[in-house]
Amino acid sequence: MTTHQTVQPCIEFWFEFASNYSYLSVMRIEAAAAQCGVKVIWQPFLLGPIFESLGWNTSPFVLQKLKGEYVWKDMQRQCQKYGLPWRQPGIFPRRSTLPLRVALLGSEQPWIGAYCQRIMRLNFAEDREIDTVEQVASVLEEFRLPALQLIAEAQSDANRQHFRAQIDLARAKGVFGAPTFFVKGEMFWGNDRLDDALAACTEAGS
Amino acid sequence: MTTHQTVQPCIEFWFEFASNYSYLSVMRIEAAAAQCGVKVIWQPFLLGPIFESLGWNTSPFVLQKLKGEYVWKDMQRQCQKYGLPWRQPGIFPRRSTLPLRVALLGSEQPWIGAYCQRIMRLNFAEDREIDTVEQVASVLEEFRLPALQLIAEAQSDANRQHFRAQIDLARAKGVFGAPTFFVKGEMFWGNDRLDDALAACTEAGS
Repeated sequence: MTTHQTVQPCIEFWFEFASNYSYLSVMRIEAAAAQCGVKVIWQPFLLGPIFESLGWNTSPFVLQKLKGEYVWKDMQRQCQKYGLPWRQPGIFPRRSTLPLRVALLGSEQPWIGAYCQRIMRLNFAEDREIDTVEQVASVLEEFRLPALQLIAEAQSDANRQHFRAQIDLARAKGVFGAPTFFVKGEMFWGNDRLDDALAACTEAGS
Repeated sequence: MTTHQTVQPCIEFWFEFASNYSYLSVMRIEAAAAQCGVKVIWQPFLLGPIFESLGWNTSPFVLQKLKGEYVWKDMQRQCQKYGLPWRQPGIFPRRSTLPLRVALLGSEQPWIGAYCQRIMRLNFAEDREIDTVEQVASVLEEFRLPALQLIAEAQSDANRQHFRAQIDLARAKGVFGAPTFFVKGEMFWGNDRLDDALAACTEAGS
């Protein structure tokens, strides 16, 4: 007897709240993945240590002036294309460790998508700080979650260690930017590849 | 009396025969532009001096090892998506000055699109050198053009000077990579933005 088990196709979504192109994907991925029956595996991580491994002390959009200037025009047009709100952040890249630790803690919770979208809107549509207990608590409270308890857990040794391991895993997988998607072990880099990555989820063959 | 003159919308297409993402756009742009009634202004230029201005002595895909490895996987998938032949070049980036000078000379000729596609196929589908008189002559002869005469003209002082001015113009316009498109003075970078750039050509407003 052969058992045919239907396994839902998955997309690993590596993202950073400080990353402007991650903003586009965070806002788009839940609806886009749902449309093709794909499950999103939320993988928050920190880009800073990855950039440091590559010899950069900040975002390449800061280090490369011409590219940096272009990126803000591109973001404006991309947000218009996707119907997303946009305000160029006054500080870039913003500190993002606390909200990312909370995202890691809640990565399998039903509120993860809405939470990530809310944090991203604060950074890229409202130009607000996101790395404070007050701000993160206020977002969690919007979703009627036990904010201070979740933040304490996010800041616990266990979750800090998990977050560091998450960054090491990103490095080990060859991640060099965000957003990055993995589908069946294959890497897709950038919001511009989200559709291709989703298509790969449901393609026949490995 | 008001005269209404219909001006055909234009896209400036800055490309380099050594650039793998330029390969995708060179192969796609004529058909895509024709479909929306847009005229292509072919703008061949050399990336090397632009990269040097940015402090790089070669392609960032060579300088950044992880990104470089990723790019070849991405190219394979992108070529599959667009139905284009693909073979990873054994040498990257290839020398491309002579065929680019010929492209500049012929940039307003009816054969420019087919010529550029043929040179690109040599580099990215057949893994052949493109910067020799023999190779460029053989391509021009395929199109029944006076090969040696065109090559002599391409190597003339006047055309060399024009080509240097072309690179200076790219730098002055803020070009930092290829392909790059300009529509109504706005810059779009990368093959991933070709469709957006074409859409901007026919949008109402400035």
